[in-house]
Amino acid sequence: MKCDLAIIGAGPAGMTAAVYGARAGLSVKLVEMGAPGGQLVNTDWIENYPGFPEGLTGAELMIKFAMQAMNFSEVEYITSYVSGISRKGNELLLTTSGEEIEAKAIVVATGAMPKKLGVEGEQAFIGAGVSYCGTCDGAFFRDREVAVIGGGDTALEEAVFLTKFASKVTLIHRRDAFRGAKILQDRVRDNEKIEVLYSETLERILGDTNVEEVELKQVESGELHRMKVDGVFIFVGTSPNTEFLKNSDVELDERGQIKASTQLETSMPGVFVAGDARQTQLRQVSTAVGDAALATINASKYIEGL
Amino acid sequence: MKCDLAIIGAGPAGMTAAVYGARAGLSVKLVEMGAPGGQLVNTDWIENYPGFPEGLTGAELMIKFAMQAMNFSEVEYITSYVSGISRKGNELLLTTSGEEIEAKAIVVATGAMPKKLGVEGEQAFIGAGVSYCGTCDGAFFRDREVAVIGGGDTALEEAVFLTKFASKVTLIHRRDAFRGAKILQDRVRDNEKIEVLYSETLERILGDTNVEEVELKQVESGELHRMKVDGVFIFVGTSPNTEFLKNSDVELDERGQIKASTQLETSMPGVFVAGDARQTQLRQVSTAVGDAALATINASKYIEGL
Repeated sequence: MKCDLAIIGAGPAGMTAAVYGARAGLSVKLVEMGAPGGQLVNTDWIENYPGFPEGLTGAELMIKFAMQAMNFSEVEYITSYVSGISRKGNELLLTTSGEEIEAKAIVVATGAMPKKLGVEGEQAFIGAGVSYCGTCDGAFFRDREVAVIGGGDTALEEAVFLTKFASKVTLIHRRDAFRGAKILQDRVRDNEKIEVLYSETLERILGDTNVEEVELKQVESGELHRMKVDGVFIFVGTSPNTEFLKNSDVELDERGQIKASTQLETSMPGVFVAGDARQTQLRQVSTAVGDAALATINASKYIEGL
Repeated sequence: MKCDLAIIGAGPAGMTAAVYGARAGLSVKLVEMGAPGGQLVNTDWIENYPGFPEGLTGAELMIKFAMQAMNFSEVEYITSYVSGISRKGNELLLTTSGEEIEAKAIVVATGAMPKKLGVEGEQAFIGAGVSYCGTCDGAFFRDREVAVIGGGDTALEEAVFLTKFASKVTLIHRRDAFRGAKILQDRVRDNEKIEVLYSETLERILGDTNVEEVELKQVESGELHRMKVDGVFIFVGTSPNTEFLKNSDVELDERGQIKASTQLETSMPGVFVAGDARQTQLRQVSTAVGDAALATINASKYIEGL
């Protein structure tokens, strides 16, 4: 099938790109392998996306974004996994798990996924006590004790969120200070259910069929000790969803992030990028939305120039 | 008075910066010479800011932004005109129409103003038929005939908006095609009250106490002709509000736009920029919000590093 603009990924960046693409008069295919929303759906509460003074849940905001994109008859939502992109003359081709898609320009908005620590037991206990999403799995830990690993905004937010369910949350951070926003640090400090272990790393996750214990290492002394927990929530950053670009002309950096110009064009002409999949310091709904406006206006100019 | 972060301008970028500054635990002075909202207040209808599928007025969105910023006790709104910024050791000083402000970092979010054409009669008839804002002045032209000058998004949007009041709108564009979004071009074409004159420029605005006539020039032939109108609405781009930086260390380009790194730091350490005042191709609420998140997080990091 054919379109003017193919958008890969239906998180905040992808849905914003759909709005801007439709308003530019382009026929748009919004290609997503699952449900819309991206990381937004895993976010319990959002109070720093401007326009919502009372705050709202990630799911609520996702529904608003999706309605706004789908209001346009120019936008078609396609559920497919994109496995690669290539060029055929002036056209760009998307190889998908369904029908091949031909587009004049592409906005890559595939976002990022939670990063794994790579420690013993982590992979084995996913779904059996190891989780990367408090909103998704927190309720399974009512009156139980959990460990949270990390020190950025997400780790602090999720530690506080998990106290809604867990009887105790131990927040384990490899450094001696948090990176996360001051307001979140205050909330962690003021929460009686949270204990913080600074300068410790997670070494192993142990148990029989479910998580029972974690082994921790004190960074300075190298000393190991164990702690009983029922769950381990890991928030140590994200990895971009860019595997499908490895054999394309789109240049990635050593972390797999998409390189782009200030105009958000990638090294492959006609392919633009918006949101968490690109090389960037800050991953917020606000920045995804700003990116998507710019990337899509430039994609539209690119198409006019063909 | 003292603060961690001074934000100059309370449009979408400034108000977003206030939210991010407060959440980073900074004391914030939001300095604005008038009412909050910036260009947003002059915008009749917004349907491309994600999160509002039904669309909303600029004034409504402004109120939401302002409530969200002022929800934080860390944010103080100060009504003052900033006339200059300078450095004293590690501190930045803002000279204002009121008390001097000392800040550790600054986010400049002063935005841009509608650009003047500079033709005869323009200045003389401001408020007497010449306007730069349909939302503000459209209702004065009920059942009257008006000219709209320009070919970008704003000119097209405003031409359509003005048909709510005016009996006839003549849209005058110096080129033979519009730059504005396709969807807006379609709306112009489908509106029976709008007539388009391509490849014509406005040369003079004539009248006694109010606008009565415009003199137009056909670009190709150079031929002049006159047209009776009761009003002239001019939408030919914007000029950044950066006059107050002319004697500072903040580098501007030849158009007066603030130059910044990809991290939105200006040439003056500790001074960051967000929104329409910076060197940028695209001026949208979406991009202002994305800018402000990035600029403020970086301002916060700068302060931590002091």
